[in-house]
Amino acid sequence: MSPEQPVWSGPQRVVLTSSGDPLRLRSGAELAHVEVAYETFGELAPERDNVVVVCHALTGDAHIAGEGGWWANLVGPGLAVDTDRWFVVCANLLGGCRGTTGPSSIDPATGRVHGLDFPLFEVADQVSVHRRLLDHLGIGRLHALVGGSLGGMQVLEWLLAEPERTDHAVLVATPARLTTENIAFSAVAREAIMSDPDFHDGRYAEHGVTPRRGLKVARMMAHITYVSAESLASKFGHRRVPAGPDGAPGTATLGVDFEVESYLQHQGESFLDRFDALSYLYLSRALDHFDPLGDPATPSRLARLAAHGTRVSLTSFDTDWRFSTAQSEPIVTALRAAGVEVDAVELRSPWGHDSFLLEPPGYHARVRAALDGVPAVNIR
Amino acid sequence: MSPEQPVWSGPQRVVLTSSGDPLRLRSGAELAHVEVAYETFGELAPERDNVVVVCHALTGDAHIAGEGGWWANLVGPGLAVDTDRWFVVCANLLGGCRGTTGPSSIDPATGRVHGLDFPLFEVADQVSVHRRLLDHLGIGRLHALVGGSLGGMQVLEWLLAEPERTDHAVLVATPARLTTENIAFSAVAREAIMSDPDFHDGRYAEHGVTPRRGLKVARMMAHITYVSAESLASKFGHRRVPAGPDGAPGTATLGVDFEVESYLQHQGESFLDRFDALSYLYLSRALDHFDPLGDPATPSRLARLAAHGTRVSLTSFDTDWRFSTAQSEPIVTALRAAGVEVDAVELRSPWGHDSFLLEPPGYHARVRAALDGVPAVNIR
Repeated sequence: MSPEQPVWSGPQRVVLTSSGDPLRLRSGAELAHVEVAYETFGELAPERDNVVVVCHALTGDAHIAGEGGWWANLVGPGLAVDTDRWFVVCANLLGGCRGTTGPSSIDPATGRVHGLDFPLFEVADQVSVHRRLLDHLGIGRLHALVGGSLGGMQVLEWLLAEPERTDHAVLVATPARLTTENIAFSAVAREAIMSDPDFHDGRYAEHGVTPRRGLKVARMMAHITYVSAESLASKFGHRRVPAGPDGAPGTATLGVDFEVESYLQHQGESFLDRFDALSYLYLSRALDHFDPLGDPATPSRLARLAAHGTRVSLTSFDTDWRFSTAQSEPIVTALRAAGVEVDAVELRSPWGHDSFLLEPPGYHARVRAALDGVPAVNIR
Repeated sequence: MSPEQPVWSGPQRVVLTSSGDPLRLRSGAELAHVEVAYETFGELAPERDNVVVVCHALTGDAHIAGEGGWWANLVGPGLAVDTDRWFVVCANLLGGCRGTTGPSSIDPATGRVHGLDFPLFEVADQVSVHRRLLDHLGIGRLHALVGGSLGGMQVLEWLLAEPERTDHAVLVATPARLTTENIAFSAVAREAIMSDPDFHDGRYAEHGVTPRRGLKVARMMAHITYVSAESLASKFGHRRVPAGPDGAPGTATLGVDFEVESYLQHQGESFLDRFDALSYLYLSRALDHFDPLGDPATPSRLARLAAHGTRVSLTSFDTDWRFSTAQSEPIVTALRAAGVEVDAVELRSPWGHDSFLLEPPGYHARVRAALDGVPAVNIR
């Protein structure tokens, strides 16, 4: 292993339920069998006091660091989430398609894919699964929780579920809830998937197909919302693709004329190889209904968080129009009203929501400082 | 006819081509047979000096005023475009599906629908058809051209094609060209339509179907870009729809949970009854390639416009993120550089791009003043 590679558990999997101990969801529905896929990076200290849980976003997975890790610029030896110091745990989400039980998993009770019989769940339920995983690993108190986008939403649910379990929390590009516009885009994505004739009411696996057309359209559209108009303009402008065999350069077609179209085609196509349509439906719906500040129990939970002394770092990006600073402000307000120590900053970044996966100036330094429990030197 | 109804021609249709006189497109392609559907409102003055041409937007049609008219709040007796004074002409667009020749029209040469054999065209070609129509009607000089969105883009092409033909021009929510993000959304819409199995390479009519799923998704997505995040939030917020027979109120489903989803469903479904998928492809592509300021011939055309003394009114709306003020600014700059008299204002309006169809304060007064040739009293 090269020196830059973190100590790594490799892919791990554990069943968290047993007969008589199902996962009970907030809706009241139960899942009798829940497996969780997870990975760890770094080494657990003998005192078990160096645990950092990273929560992944909508289409991420547990493989955050090392080769092919989707957050390998942030998590690794010597990086902001330094795997030479911290024992980092990341688990796949309930409802996802990367190893943890989801709607496309086989239901052991029937031997068939769950499909649309899989119960709807909330972000709090996804966190509940991961809390069980940490219990299973014998890890109580956490040094920190870190997440961006849906990952940050999980961090918030963690804090509310167990206000005394964590000392530091890092939320990036995290909304208190979705906007009406967010929900509208989400609805169009689901429409594209569910109206694809190959969706077969969610039983597509039994038909040997996947709703590729709908999932591709959903991803292409969603991708536009992950970036900024500015970044699309500076990256692609109005540049044309080289003409194909049937056209002179610059000839208009109904195919791919502009580089940005070629880029979106690639985004849509490559997504099909790594993501499942049912998971997309269920995860996006959990996002739509996320609204922890609307829960009457939240203020008392936040008061416990303040009493525990948990410090919260919140970062947003000025060009992020999917989960904007305005959407995260209610979190800051609620935390401060409860007396929680919050360091909230909007950073400049040209890359829209995707900024949380990139390295706009000041961002990684803020994450590092938050884990160290020291004030960040904020730049703008 | 009630007193509020304008004098109306009823639907009219004329063939503008003849053998030996096809429509030659900018690409070099020719259309041997082009019919145009149009309507007129008001009465042509004996001096033929009261003609106002209204150019319609992407999914509009010639029926602008009177009962069911899509711009009936602006055009009619006593309104900003006063049909008691002006003889208003509006014609359906080349490539559209409301009477003027388009890709779903029957090609008289083959007896079949054109389909994807219909040549790609530019906005300038659409204007060329309408210029022929006006010639056919014996109308030379125009008092004014009025258009919003794609309608405004046509107005700009009219000015460039015949700089001496028009005395006043009213452009609303009109970009100099599309942004990269605009083109990206447009590409997703086309992907949705063309990947629908019922598209049948554009020969869906011959299969007795239409690509309803794709067209619905395209329209739902586009609709989000026509409104503002603010207007969606104030109109729908996070309100839920009443629960159906299979769920308690507030129960999450993968169907329609939020009012905004119900609204989008309605927008998508109702569009299917009035618009054609092939037209959507062709018209959206004409928008993508619109870039008249990039044409080397434009500065000399604008100089002629200035010499003629044409006055241009340009209005944009602050929440319009589809065709923003920034996108119309290059038009203002180019016109002023050429010495054209331009009155350009950004109005406040909560409704995004759709503002051009509504009545934000100051808007209709500006249109009326422009047609009167007097300075608008601008409010903000």
